[in-house]
Amino acid sequence: MAPQVTVDSINPKVIECQYAVRGEIVILAQKLQQEIQAKPEAYPFQEILYCNIGNPQSLGQKSITFFREVLALCDHPAILAKSETQALFSADSIERARKILDQIPGRATGAYSHSQGIKGLRDTIAAAIEARDGFPADPNDIFMTDGASPAVHMMMQLLIRSEKDGILCPIPQYPLYSASIALHGGTLVPYYLDEATGWGLEVSELKKQLQEAKSNGITVRALVVINPGNPTGQVLAEENQKALVEFCKEEGLVLLADEVYQENVYVPEKKFHSFKKVARSMGYGEKDIYLVSFQSVSKGYYGECGKRGGYMEVTGFGADVREHIYKLASVNLCSNITGQILASLVMSPPKVGDKSYEPYIAERDGILSSLARRAKTLEDAFNKLEGITCNKAEGAMYLFPRINLPKKAIKAAEEVKTAPDLFYCRRLLNETGIVFVPGSGFGQVPGTWHFRCTILPQEEKIPAIVTRLTDFHKRFMDEFRD
Amino acid sequence: MAPQVTVDSINPKVIECQYAVRGEIVILAQKLQQEIQAKPEAYPFQEILYCNIGNPQSLGQKSITFFREVLALCDHPAILAKSETQALFSADSIERARKILDQIPGRATGAYSHSQGIKGLRDTIAAAIEARDGFPADPNDIFMTDGASPAVHMMMQLLIRSEKDGILCPIPQYPLYSASIALHGGTLVPYYLDEATGWGLEVSELKKQLQEAKSNGITVRALVVINPGNPTGQVLAEENQKALVEFCKEEGLVLLADEVYQENVYVPEKKFHSFKKVARSMGYGEKDIYLVSFQSVSKGYYGECGKRGGYMEVTGFGADVREHIYKLASVNLCSNITGQILASLVMSPPKVGDKSYEPYIAERDGILSSLARRAKTLEDAFNKLEGITCNKAEGAMYLFPRINLPKKAIKAAEEVKTAPDLFYCRRLLNETGIVFVPGSGFGQVPGTWHFRCTILPQEEKIPAIVTRLTDFHKRFMDEFRD
Repeated sequence: MAPQVTVDSINPKVIECQYAVRGEIVILAQKLQQEIQAKPEAYPFQEILYCNIGNPQSLGQKSITFFREVLALCDHPAILAKSETQALFSADSIERARKILDQIPGRATGAYSHSQGIKGLRDTIAAAIEARDGFPADPNDIFMTDGASPAVHMMMQLLIRSEKDGILCPIPQYPLYSASIALHGGTLVPYYLDEATGWGLEVSELKKQLQEAKSNGITVRALVVINPGNPTGQVLAEENQKALVEFCKEEGLVLLADEVYQENVYVPEKKFHSFKKVARSMGYGEKDIYLVSFQSVSKGYYGECGKRGGYMEVTGFGADVREHIYKLASVNLCSNITGQILASLVMSPPKVGDKSYEPYIAERDGILSSLARRAKTLEDAFNKLEGITCNKAEGAMYLFPRINLPKKAIKAAEEVKTAPDLFYCRRLLNETGIVFVPGSGFGQVPGTWHFRCTILPQEEKIPAIVTRLTDFHKRFMDEFRD
Repeated sequence: MAPQVTVDSINPKVIECQYAVRGEIVILAQKLQQEIQAKPEAYPFQEILYCNIGNPQSLGQKSITFFREVLALCDHPAILAKSETQALFSADSIERARKILDQIPGRATGAYSHSQGIKGLRDTIAAAIEARDGFPADPNDIFMTDGASPAVHMMMQLLIRSEKDGILCPIPQYPLYSASIALHGGTLVPYYLDEATGWGLEVSELKKQLQEAKSNGITVRALVVINPGNPTGQVLAEENQKALVEFCKEEGLVLLADEVYQENVYVPEKKFHSFKKVARSMGYGEKDIYLVSFQSVSKGYYGECGKRGGYMEVTGFGADVREHIYKLASVNLCSNITGQILASLVMSPPKVGDKSYEPYIAERDGILSSLARRAKTLEDAFNKLEGITCNKAEGAMYLFPRINLPKKAIKAAEEVKTAPDLFYCRRLLNETGIVFVPGSGFGQVPGTWHFRCTILPQEEKIPAIVTRLTDFHKRFMDEFRD
C-alpha cells in the first residue's frame, strides 16, 4: 500500500494557518446564496449582504474612469493611433498610456518586467511618495507586488528563521499577518490595541510584550503596525507614530508599516502620515531604521482588488540583505504589469488642468464622502443596539463593534461547540443574509467578543442592513437575555 | 546597541535559495546595457541579446490581437456599447468580452474573485481541458494563479514538512523548483535526464534515486516532471509517461506535471499528452493518483509573461486536504483578474467561423513556425562548434547544449574562483552581448558543462547571434584549446 497524502501528512504549518476573512462564515454565505437562487421562497431574504471583506467593486462601487481608460489602452496599444479612439477615450488617458508605454522596454506590456517592477513606473511612484512626504524616495527601494499580501509574505520569509523568531502584531489584526507568520513557522507576539481609547496603541504595551517574549526565548524581529487600522479603523496620531519609530530604532526591529488605507481617512481631525515621513522628520535617515511600507491598489477610493497591484518601499537594509530581497522577488519573476501600471496611476492621478481632472475628482470624492457617511450610519446603528459598543471608523473600511453577549448565548454557543462570536454571526447570516466576520478571526482580548463589518455595501442598501440587523439583534437578545 | 538585520540573521533558507535565470549573468548584462547607452563607442557591440529567459514579448514577439482586444474591453467595459468600438474591435472580441463580463459577479473586473478564480472562467478552462484530453475535467479542480510559479510554491508549501521531505526533480531542471524546495526547507532529490538519449527520462533512474533517498531517511512526497522539458526541450513519449504514472501510483507520490509548454512542440513526430489524459487512459481515476498539472499564459505561442496568468488542475486529493489547498489560495485572496481572463482565452481561442479565427491562426502559426525554424538554426549552429553537442529542441523554448571545455579553460575559471560554465558565459557576454545562463543554474551531471539558450530572439537577429557566437567560440578555443 502506497503512502497517502492526508491531513496527517501535510505541512503542519499549513494546518495551523487560519484565514477567517474567507473562512467558515463566508463559505456558509456562498452556500446560502446558491440555495436562494435555487429556492428563493424558502428564505426570508433574497440577497446575501457581504460585509465580510474589503472588496468594494464586488458591492457595486464603480472603478475610476481615467484608470480604466489607461489600462485598456495599455492592453491594446494598437488602437492608440486610431481616430475613433479620440472619441472613446479622454485626451489625457491617451497621453498617459503613451507615456507609460514609452517607459516599458520595447513597449511590451506582455513581457516579464524587472523583478522589482518596471523602472519608469517605480520612478513615478517614488516621485509621488516624495510629493506626499516631503522627503526623498528612491525608485530602487520600490518592489512592486501582486497586491500587498505577497510583499508581506516576502518580508516574513526573510525575517523568520524558526518558531524562536517573533513578530509583534496588533490584536485585533488583519489575519494575513497571523496566517503568514504561521506559514513561515514564526511566533506571533501579540500587542493589544486599547479599545477604551479608540483602539489606542501604547508603547508601554509594546515594551511589556517584547519583554515577555524575550523572557520566553523569542527573538522579536519586527513590529507590524496597520495604519489606518484593520479591522479597527483608527488613524494614528503623529506623536504616537514617533514613539513607535523610536521604539523600533531602540530595539532594532523592522517596522512593517501596513499603509494600504492611506487614502481612507474619514474624520477631519485626523490625517494620514507615512511612517517614513515621520521617521525622516525625526532626523532618522536610511541607516537609522529598518522600515518597510506596504501599499496596494485594492484599497483607497479606487478599490481595485482584482487587479492585484501594490508595492513595498524597503529602506534601511544593507546592500547584502537587499540582494536577498531582490532574489525573493526574482523567484516569482515579476508582479502583473496591469497591476504595476495601476499602482503608478493611483499614486499619480490626474492633476489640475488635465482633461480628466474634474471627472476624476468627482468620482474620488463621491466615493470617499459616501464611505464616510456609511461609516457614521453604521457606527451609530451599532451603538444603538443593546450590549453593543462601537468605536468610530476614523479610516480604513471597517467597524469592529464589541458585543457584550449574554451568558445564556455563550452557553448556547458552547453547547454547539462554537465560539460565541461565531455563534452570533452564523445566526445573523442565517436569519438576515448579512455576513460579518467573527472577532476571533482577528484576535480580541480574551473574554470579549466582536465582529468586523465593512462599510462597503452601497449607500442605498445601508438602511436595509440597519433595519435587518436591528430586528435580528432584538430577537437574539429576547431569546438569550440573562 | 540594537540587534541588526544582517545576512547572518535572516532566514538561512532564503540565503540558500538560488535563481540563476535572473542571477549574476543577467545582472551583469543589465549593467552592460546601461554602460553601452552611456558610452556606445567603448563596446564592440551595441545591443545585449537576451537569450536567458523565456520572455518572448521582451524580444519583440507581438501579442495575439484577439486576446488583447478582449482584455482591453474587459478593462473598460464602458466603451462596449459605443458605436466607435465596432470600428476598433472585432465583432467576436466584443462578443467574448460581453460573455466574460456576464460570467463575473456584478461584472466587477476590479473585485477580488473566488479564491480559486472566477467560476465561469474555470468552467471555460475545464471544458477546454476536456476537449483537449477526451476525459472529464471539473472546474472545482482548477486553481487560477498569477502565472505557474505561485502554484508550484503552493504545492511545495503543502507537501514539505521539513528537510526530511524530498521532491524528485529532473536534473537539469527549471530553477523555480530548486528555489521553491529550498525556500520551503525540503530536500531536492535529483534524477538525471539522459543526455545521450535526447534527455530521456528513465523510470529505473527514478527508482534508484528514490531508494537512495529512502535509505538516507528522506520521505519522497512528489515527482516533478517538466514536459515539454525546460531547459532541455524534450517531449516525452506517451509510453514513457505511462511508466511515470505507474511509478507515482505505486509509490504514492504526487505527480507535479509542469505542462506550461504544452503548445510548444516543434517536431512532427512528437505530440503533447497531458499526464491527466495519460493517467485516465490507463484507467486511473480521481481516487487512484495524486496529479497536479500546471499551466501558464506566459508560454505557448502567446508568451504573455507580464500578465501573470495561469492555473493548476488539482486531482486525487481528499476533501480535507483540498480544504487546506483552498485555504492557501485564500490567504492571497485571488490571482489577478486580467490574468484569469487571459488564461480562459488561451484555453479557448477563436474557433472556425469566428470573425477573428483566420487572423488568429495566422498569428499563432506565424509564431510557432518561426520558433521551430529558430530552434533548428540554433541547434545546427551549436552542433557545428568545436566541442559542443546539442540535442534537438522538440518543444519548449530552449536549447541546453553541452560544452566540452578544455582543461586550460577550466583551470582559468578556477583561478578566478568561477564555475567553468559561468566563466564561458561571462566571457561570451562581455565580448558579444549574448546572454546565456550557465548550466550550473539548472544542474548537470558533475564534470559536464552546459548552458541554456532560448530560441526567442526575433528571427532576423538569429544570423547575427550565430555569427557572433561562432566567432567568439573560435577565439575562446584558440585561447584555451589543450
